[in-house]
Formats: sequence, C-alpha cells, structure tokens
Amino acid sequence: MAKDKKFVSEITSRDEDFAQWFTDVCIKAELIDYSSIKGFTVMRPYGQALWENIQKSLDAKFKATGHENVAMPLLIPESLLQKEKDHVEGFAPEVAWVTYGGSEKLEERYCVRPTSETLFCDHWAHVLQSYRQLPMKYNQWCSVVRWEKTTRPFLRGREFFWQEGHTIHETEQEAQEETLQMLNIYADFAENELMMPVIKGRKTPSEQFAGAQATYTIEAMMHDGKALQSGTSHYFGDGFARAFDVTFADRNNTQSYPFQTSWGVSTRIIGALIMSHGDDYGLILPPAVAPIQVVIVPVAQHKEGVLEAAARLKERIGKLYRVKLDDSDNSPGWKFNQYEMKGVPLRVEIGPKDIENNQCVIVRRDNHEKTVVSLDNLENELARLTKELEQALFDKAKANMESKTETLSTMEEIITSATTKDGFIKTLWCGDEECEKAMKEKAGLTSRCMPFGEQDDIDGVCPVCGKKAKHRVIWGKAY
Amino acid sequence: MAKDKKFVSEITSRDEDFAQWFTDVCIKAELIDYSSIKGFTVMRPYGQALWENIQKSLDAKFKATGHENVAMPLLIPESLLQKEKDHVEGFAPEVAWVTYGGSEKLEERYCVRPTSETLFCDHWAHVLQSYRQLPMKYNQWCSVVRWEKTTRPFLRGREFFWQEGHTIHETEQEAQEETLQMLNIYADFAENELMMPVIKGRKTPSEQFAGAQATYTIEAMMHDGKALQSGTSHYFGDGFARAFDVTFADRNNTQSYPFQTSWGVSTRIIGALIMSHGDDYGLILPPAVAPIQVVIVPVAQHKEGVLEAAARLKERIGKLYRVKLDDSDNSPGWKFNQYEMKGVPLRVEIGPKDIENNQCVIVRRDNHEKTVVSLDNLENELARLTKELEQALFDKAKANMESKTETLSTMEEIITSATTKDGFIKTLWCGDEECEKAMKEKAGLTSRCMPFGEQDDIDGVCPVCGKKAKHRVIWGKAY
Repeated sequence: MAKDKKFVSEITSRDEDFAQWFTDVCIKAELIDYSSIKGFTVMRPYGQALWENIQKSLDAKFKATGHENVAMPLLIPESLLQKEKDHVEGFAPEVAWVTYGGSEKLEERYCVRPTSETLFCDHWAHVLQSYRQLPMKYNQWCSVVRWEKTTRPFLRGREFFWQEGHTIHETEQEAQEETLQMLNIYADFAENELMMPVIKGRKTPSEQFAGAQATYTIEAMMHDGKALQSGTSHYFGDGFARAFDVTFADRNNTQSYPFQTSWGVSTRIIGALIMSHGDDYGLILPPAVAPIQVVIVPVAQHKEGVLEAAARLKERIGKLYRVKLDDSDNSPGWKFNQYEMKGVPLRVEIGPKDIENNQCVIVRRDNHEKTVVSLDNLENELARLTKELEQALFDKAKANMESKTETLSTMEEIITSATTKDGFIKTLWCGDEECEKAMKEKAGLTSRCMPFGEQDDIDGVCPVCGKKAKHRVIWGKAY
Repeated sequence: MAKDKKFVSEITSRDEDFAQWFTDVCIKAELIDYSSIKGFTVMRPYGQALWENIQKSLDAKFKATGHENVAMPLLIPESLLQKEKDHVEGFAPEVAWVTYGGSEKLEERYCVRPTSETLFCDHWAHVLQSYRQLPMKYNQWCSVVRWEKTTRPFLRGREFFWQEGHTIHETEQEAQEETLQMLNIYADFAENELMMPVIKGRKTPSEQFAGAQATYTIEAMMHDGKALQSGTSHYFGDGFARAFDVTFADRNNTQSYPFQTSWGVSTRIIGALIMSHGDDYGLILPPAVAPIQVVIVPVAQHKEGVLEAAARLKERIGKLYRVKLDDSDNSPGWKFNQYEMKGVPLRVEIGPKDIENNQCVIVRRDNHEKTVVSLDNLENELARLTKELEQALFDKAKANMESKTETLSTMEEIITSATTKDGFIKTLWCGDEECEKAMKEKAGLTSRCMPFGEQDDIDGVCPVCGKKAKHRVIWGKAY
C-alpha cells in the first residue's frame, strides 16, 4: 500500500488547498499540459476525448432543434468589431491584434475573434433577403482568444474552446423563445449528463454580455462553495442587426431588422465537472461523457486464463460501454490508482478466483464500494451501478449547494457570512447598480443571477439601500 | 422549361470558363460565401455538413489505427517557430503576426499557426520520458493561417481547415511505416469514398515540406487536366526532435531522439471533389460524404395523399440514408434544379400516378437517368443505383485522367504538349533540381510526384539534360 499512498499523495488534498488540488488533478489526470505560450494550454488526448464527448452530446441536441453548423473566419477587421458600440467596448481591451501578414504591415488591424457576433452579422447582411430564409439557426465549434492577465486551466485562458450559437428570427418572441430554449438545453445537459445541479436565471444588467439586452445563465456551485457560470444565452433584440444593417423583406414586403440571439458553452464546463465531483483520489467523471466508462483490471494476470477471461469481458462490455482493458505490466494497485485519478466511473476486476466462481468484482469510483457480480448478471449490474453512481454524484453536488446557500436580509449578516465562508447568498435587491457595487466592495460578492421562479413574491427591501426591492438575487464569489 | 434553363444558365458553363464555373458552383451550391475579410471565406451549413462527413470518416480511420485527438495552442512564439531552420524559412514569409494583446505591445511576436510541428515538438519535449510512452500518435482538427497573396475558395485561402496528424516513434522504420500507412488511408478514402482516382508517389526534394526528409502525396487530376495535391504525409527523421531537444530513455537507458511524421488533408479536398465530378448543372457529390444522399420531391403535392406518401417514403429511406423531403411551395422543376446544383446523388419523385401504381421514380444526378421502381423493391434499388453512381463517378474521373496523361521523352514533345493542353506528362528525370527548374521555365510544368511502382525499370535519359535518368516523374500544372 505504500506505493499507492505515494501515488495519491502526489496530489494536494482537496480541503487543504482547493486551487492547488484543482491544478494537480488537471495535470495528473492528463487532461491538459502547460505550453511554452503563456496562458495557452495543450489539450491532451484524455482531455480532448472528454471534450469530444461533451461536443457530441450537445451537437446532437443542437441539430435536433434545427441548428446547423457553420465556420466563420478566425480574424475580425477592427472596423467590423467597432460597428456595435457596447460590444467593442466590452471586447477591444482584451483581444489579440494581428498587424503583419508575412513581412508586410497590414493596412487595417485584425483581431483574433474573442466571439463572433460581428462575423455572423456581416455574413447575414450579405445573404439575408427575405423572411422566407428565417430563422437562420447557426452554431460553430471553435476556439476564441481573449488576452487575460491571469489564467488557469479550463477556467480562464487566453485561448479556450467553445461552441457559439448565433440565430436570427423574424419576431422578437421567437428570438426570446430561442434564448430560453437553449438555456434549458444547457441546464438539462448539465443536470442529466454531467450530474451537476445548476440554477437558471437572468443576469443583472451590469453582468450582461457586451451588446445584449438580456443574458441568461446556468450557475453551478463548486465543492468549495464558489460559483461557476457554466453556460450563457443572450437575447440581442435588433441592436446588432441595426448596427450591421442586416435587413430582410418581411411579409408586407417592408425592410425589417431580424431579432438575434447567441449562446455558448465552453471548456470551462470541464473545470466545473472537476470541481463539482472530484475528490482526493482525483477526477470523478459522470458516465455520459467519460472517455472510459469501465476499466477492466485483471488480477494475477500471469495466471492461466486470466487475460483471456479479461479479453472476453472487454468484448462483452464493449458492446454497451466505452471500455478499456489494462493488461500492461503495471501492478493492479498502480492501475487502480491510475484509473481513479482519471475518474473512470466503474472498475471491473477479474482474477483466478472470480473465473472459478463465474463472477467479477465491480468497484464504484465515487464511494469505492465493491460488488461481487455473477457474470450471468453482468449487464444488469453495470447498468444499475452506473445509474446509482450518477444519482449519487448529483445528490452529493446538490447537497453541497443546498448546505452552502443562505437566505439573508441585512448587510451585517451578509458581510459576516461572506467573510467567513464561500457559498450562495440569496437576498432581495432594488435593481440599482450602485447597490450591486456596494455588495462587491463591502462583501466581495458578485451577482450570479436573478433565479427563475423566485421573482414573483418580492416583498421587502434591498439590504444595501433599504429601498423597496424589485428582484431576488443570488450572490457569490465566482471563478 | 424556361425557368429551369434560367436557373442553370446562372452558372458559367464548365467548358467555357472552368475557373468561373468552379466559383459559381461554390457560391450557388451554398458551400461557402465570401466574407469582408480578404482571403477568408464563410463555410455555410451545406459546406460545413460536407466537411463534417469527411471529418467523421477520416477521424474513424485515424482512431481505428490508434491515433488520438489533441488540441495545441493557436499561436506560436517567434522563438519557437525559429528552432528548425528549414521550417522557419518555409513558413515565416507567410504567417500572420500577433503583436498586441489588448493595448499592450507583446514582448515577443506570436504567429497564428501555419502548421503545428513546432507546437507538438514543444509539448513532446515536456512530456516524453521513456520508450514506454512511444509511439505517440496524435491528430488535431483545426484551421491554420497562411498569408497568401491570391486566394480561391477551398483551393488557396488565408485560413483553411484541415487535420494535421503528428506522431513520434522509437524507430526510423516504424515512423516510415506510419508515413506510408497514412498516405494509404488518404488514397483509400479518396478512391473508395470520394470516388476520385489518385496517384500515390513521393515528392521531389524541391517540393518537400519545409523540414521534411521525405514527403509523399496523393495527386488527383481535375476535369480540366490540372493537378490537385489532395493529401500529404511527411517523414522527418529525427531533425525536429534534435532541434527541439525531444528525447527519451531508450531500451538501453540511453537518451535518444524519436523519429517523427506528420500528415494532413484539408478542405482543399472539397475543391478536388467539385472539380473532379461537377458538371454544368452544378455539384455532384459522392454518396459517402453527401450531406443529403437522397432528396424526395413530391409531384402535384396539393393532391390528396401525395405529401403523406412522401412522408412515409422519407421515414423508410431515412433509416438507411441521409434524406431530405422538400415539401416547400416551390415548383418541382425549381426543386429538381436546386438539388442538382447541390449535387444530391439520388432524387426520388412521387406523385399521384406513382402512388396508384405502388411505385416511385428515382433519378441519378450524374446521368439524369430515370428508373421507375416498385416500392416493394425500394431499398434494393436505392442501393443498386447508389453503387452504380459511385462506380460511374470513379470511372469517369479515371477515364479523364488516363486520356490526359502522356508519356513523353523529348523536350520538344513536352513543350508542344504542355503549351497546347493541360494534363499529366510522364517522363524520366536525372534527379537534378536544375532540370526540374528548366521544366518549369520552358514548359510551365511542376513535378507532381515520383509515382510508386514505376521507379524500378528506369532505362533512359533525362529529357532536359540528356544524362542518365534515375527517376520517373509525373509533371503537370497544379492548383
């Protein structure tokens, strides 16, 4: 066991130093590696496979709701970025500028896209003519660049991967419905596949996307009580359309502006996964997106028949799950640790005694519980344990969120709570941006969202100014 | 028919102006659109769906041969690009340079990756330790930027999409085998799925990739007789490893350099597809990668039962093919033209008379041949017609290549041929770069490759210098 312990001790304990634990898991589970380019990481095969599973699932949901993938240019001319005033103010300070092509200085600077609203609008201005072409519901998978000062794997990088959906619609109502439909798709994905409870709500105006009329968000709580914005969906009205002169002949043959949305989920969600479910043994991956759902570790594999039995198991399980058989020379103990670090949901052990008894042992990653399973009942048991593990991940994260959420009404309570621990604080709010600033300055809190379903029974005052409250807000410290 | 004719006449005739015909097809089939950013195009939904089908097929082949996807940074610091001398000389003149992050001038310039050998080497130098980790067989799907002067959709753009495979191996032999394995995968894909005959061969040294010891290529011939390099695979020896100090402890515990390969296919292959198979009606797509494999057009759709019968057909065909039912208000004639322009391989027509007779009409895109098919035999007939269309596409392209390939031995013959028509010219060659340059200057020809299987029986002289020949070369004019 000494060796096992050493392996585990190579990562920092989660409760000792959460930030260091997070970085250790990213590196040790071989999700990413640092590169020589400051703020840029390398997505290693295991991290990329995880992202591809996330992509596959979301992409299918986008296509099922009538969205089509496209690919816009990587670069944006400065003049194009500047067409929408709020948008350029939000993004210009943090973009990377291309100024030379080969040895020639460019006449106009191009920025590497930080997001692509301007490019989509430019395209639509070119191709849109009639209401018959609407809606146009597009998505692209790509990376974007934002020149951040401080960076952390998955959470904040100068380059990150994401999908950005961009749509235009004939009517305001249809665009608003689209915005909420996509938020719901994100929430369902987070809760039912990533097993990560989220709060759906609307951002306060100061936290809105640059150029949006409304921004909706799903907010998750990490194990340490901090918030992580895990997906956003924006409603633009016709502001961008007006700025970019995107028009169409409507049903009365009048030139009209379409109503627009955009929505995105990025590799940040991998950071959310890690910090929601991981423990001191490393990553714990929800089965729906785990690159390896079941790992088979032969025990006493030099003994006759063990590797053959393991191979037969692999073939059988491989029909239903993404499975890996590790028949390398490493010890079973080393393998156990290795795949626990990588967060593989279920481990199947098979040795001579198991073969004799027509059984195998299945170990759950989350609670290390061992179940001896008759091979006659293998598929049923794998399905049952997968379901149970999924539910347990969700329940644990949900319990964490609930135990770290308080409803408070006075500044004194809020400041005391916020300075002693991290978590969500729910309060009323008058709607004034000055009071929001005060929450930041006095309690170090930012508004996460105005949660859906909790805005109808507002009866009380804003804890900052004492004026009549109009909204209920969830505050927190955020990644 | 007047309307149909008008629609068709909107694209230039292929034999009148091949270049204009090509551009017309790209735009009219809605594969791409021009953007406001010079040299950059927008990949529209139909083009992107086509590329995604190409990606899906190739990606599965890469994974089946043990390759894993990764994602490297978008930017390369100038110092990293400069580490391999030949490589930087090849690429530095045509890269886009990022010089500012927000409002701050960067201490070092970063280029947008024109290709990623330097990034992969930088990563390997960081993570590679032991021969036990070898081979590392990686691939990434991404876009790259090269600041070209003149650009054309799919063929030459300042940004293009591709996959770049990068591998390192313990031995020279293994790396060389990898290089050829990937070339064969490309050739099989081109011939069996894109139905595009290709010639496999080795590039002459002057045409090698910057930094490579050997470059292999698949060369296709377009309808106009010009060549299009459709995929390349490079063997690097240990040159990059030495330049980037990528080392590992080998089986004798000595620090050694691994042997390296890279290989790529880009969206150029879509250009190749268009120019191999297309005709005056527009695109013709091979079924394996066509976004829509079968389009159903109801005839007299206002009549009772027609749309219902079409919907039943869609459900039935949709189990086996990517199918679209166009029940829009446009006339059948308009729809016929539209899906011919888009290159949909098979069209299924169903009208009242067909329903009465328990039949439908299937029309092949390539030769417009109509077959009346009993619905009892629908699946068999769709399969048969798909196969026949595939074979016909291949045979036609093959016949074009063969009819435009000449074997010549004197400069006089070569110059006469090259100045009167486009095609492949096969000659012997002494191996001297000066003679290669003379072929360019005197006949306007570049060496496409030294074809495999034709290098053993060299008996004769170089047509340029008259010295003893060492190789057989295929020359041509290339896109």
